[in-house]
Parts: sequence; C-alpha cells; structure tokens
Amino acid sequence: MSIITVERKVLEKNDEIASKNRELFNTHKTFTINLVSSPGSGKTSIIEKTLEHFKGRLNISIIEGDVQTDLDARRVALYNVPVVQIVTNGACHLEAKLVQDALSRLDLNGVQLLFIENVGNLVCPAAYDLGENMKIVIASTTEGDDKPLKYPRMFLNASVLLINKTDLIPYLKCDIGLLKKNALQINPALKIFEMSCTNGEGIRNWCNWLETEIAKRK
Amino acid sequence: MSIITVERKVLEKNDEIASKNRELFNTHKTFTINLVSSPGSGKTSIIEKTLEHFKGRLNISIIEGDVQTDLDARRVALYNVPVVQIVTNGACHLEAKLVQDALSRLDLNGVQLLFIENVGNLVCPAAYDLGENMKIVIASTTEGDDKPLKYPRMFLNASVLLINKTDLIPYLKCDIGLLKKNALQINPALKIFEMSCTNGEGIRNWCNWLETEIAKRK
Repeated sequence: MSIITVERKVLEKNDEIASKNRELFNTHKTFTINLVSSPGSGKTSIIEKTLEHFKGRLNISIIEGDVQTDLDARRVALYNVPVVQIVTNGACHLEAKLVQDALSRLDLNGVQLLFIENVGNLVCPAAYDLGENMKIVIASTTEGDDKPLKYPRMFLNASVLLINKTDLIPYLKCDIGLLKKNALQINPALKIFEMSCTNGEGIRNWCNWLETEIAKRK
Repeated sequence: MSIITVERKVLEKNDEIASKNRELFNTHKTFTINLVSSPGSGKTSIIEKTLEHFKGRLNISIIEGDVQTDLDARRVALYNVPVVQIVTNGACHLEAKLVQDALSRLDLNGVQLLFIENVGNLVCPAAYDLGENMKIVIASTTEGDDKPLKYPRMFLNASVLLINKTDLIPYLKCDIGLLKKNALQINPALKIFEMSCTNGEGIRNWCNWLETEIAKRK
C-alpha cells in the first residue's frame, strides 16, 4: 500500500514539473517531441536523418537520454546543433525533472523543434509526461508485428507511430499491414509514417509533416 | 528518501522469494534460464527453435512473461510443452513472486530445462533475481553494436549472450566484432553464441551447450 502512495506522489510531482516544461515550450513556440522506442529501433538515426533533411533551414535542439554513455549526443553533435546529454545512471526512463535540468543548459529562444530522445524502453517511459507536445513511438520492422498488442500503453499514449527499417522487409516475416492494424486497434487516432534511415524512403514525408506542425505554432 | 527505503524493501523481499524458487529448481535438478532482451530480439523464436531441436528428447517447460497478451504462450504451446503465462498488467519486469505463483501451476518433477521468458526490456529485469540459474541476454544484430555500453547492467548480470539474427548482417551496419568487444568490455566472463532463427545457423551449438549444462545437474 505504501508503495502505491509513494509512486502516486512521484507521478504527481512529475506532472507538476512537466506542466512547467510545457509552459516553457509553448512560450518559445518550440514544437517538442518525446521520442520513445525499444533499444535499437532507430531513434538517433531518425534524428540524424531529420537534421540532414533540414540542413540548417530549421532551428533544432536535442536532449539525449541514456542509461549510460554519451554516444548518442556525440552522434548528433556532428550536425552542429545544441545537444544536452542526460545520463540516468541506471534509471529506465526520463522524468520531467531531468528534462527541466537539461533545459537550464539550453537556450530555447528561436528553437522551432526540440527532440527529447528517451531511454530505449517500450514500457516505463510511457508513464512519464516530460511536458512534450507529443510522444512519438518508433517500431522497427525487425521487432515483429505484435508489439502494439504486447506493449499497449506506449502506443496508446503516442500521437504518431514511425515504422522504421522498411528496407529490411524483404528479409523478415513482419507483416506491415498487420503491424498497422494492431497499432490502430490500440489507438485509432495514431498517425503512421513508414521510413528507412538506410535508403531514405519516407524521410521526406515525415519531415514535411514536421514542417506543418511547426508552422502551426508560428 | 522514503522511495529508496521502499525500493530496498521490495528488492529484499524479492531476493527472499528468489532464494526459495532457486531451492525448488535445485531440488528438481531443473536448469532454469531467465531469458532477457529488448522487445523483438527473438526470445520466443529462440525458445521455439530450442524446442524444435530437442523434439521431445528433453523435458522442457516454459514460463512466459508479458505486459499484455498470451500471444507468446500460445506460440510455444504448439510444441506440446507445459507453459504458464504471466501477464504483468503494465509492470516492466518479472519479480520472484510472480514466478513463485506460476510455479504453483507447473510440475517440476522430471523437468530438465525451464525457460522463464522475461518482459521485453533491456533495463528493469536486470535488477530482479527470479531464482534462475543464469540470466541469458539476447542482442539482435538489428539493434546495433553499442547496446552493451548503453545498457551495461543487463550484460554485466548475464552469464551468456546470444547474438541473434545473424542472417541480416549483410543488410546492416552492425559490426559483430565490435558488438562482442563491447559486451566483453562490460563482462569479460560472458559466453557468446551467434545464431539465426531464420536460417538455423548456430542453433545446434547453442543446444549442445544447453545439453552439457543439463548433464552437469544429473
């Protein structure tokens, strides 16, 4: 019983700080995405492809979340964008307070798009609001078509699903039609994009949609 | 402060029950594996290939852990082995108590090998002893070669690493030599097998090793 109470308090406190983060994002008209997925689904690769597509035409910043290492921050820093790495030291998800701390080291003035790359985990990050405008979940074709049914909360809380690694479909048993059907069964409002960071398929569509979302905030 | 105390109590209680589970496994000479990985790395496929390889020559039982659905239990039940599904209802890992409950529905008499398939999560299950003889972690080639560095606790706590989906290497940027090097940097004692459930490569080696481990318990 005491655990539940403590957990509830932790979540209430988290939501309070998340609201403050959200206020900050809205004040600066920064479209903020909480990018979530299993380890190795392609979160960092999709950020890289997005940075490459916009090549300085958009003002983008990144917050990287990892259990250990700053490998991802070093990857995206090559694109000359502001990046802050959060190392959770074992914790399985980002919390609003960690993002708040990272924001003290980022200047949001003029930032049109902020990616928060969460820890690779299809369960725990679903429960924590960071103040983002939307959660975007990545499912790669190599993970199979049943993941939305097995990890429903993440797909329920996301606004957009990115199906990544479409270039590998010829070599897999993954039924992409069934993957979409399963995702929409959990969350009929999900917007879905298919893409491959290897051959570039679908990156333009995704970036066009991002531009539309950013334009709404002008 | 109170959170830490509650968490410590939870872990102490978990370890107590895990010890009882372990005693039960040892009494029955049941070699018990806690199979852990990201979602979609191939935990269930590797169990299926193992069942296929031993085709009734070994007495095998399965405990399936999932956040939602009994899809995995239904898959392995096709091989006519005893299987119990644990649905965690949102929890991100199995705990010893859930396994203890599942064991009340399994007869371990004569069972030589028990797979406990954990929730797909490369972070949280690392912290929970279920009473298993060893944790075995799967990393699939599609997840990239940096995962041991980014999720070190899981690779540190595992005794064996199964590198799955080797058939996809020609289509990926994954450097399997680097993946092994990174894994051994975290845990130099890791035993490593490479395999593919699609073309069957490496399944025999893995199963031969399982037989040796089981023979030790006779």
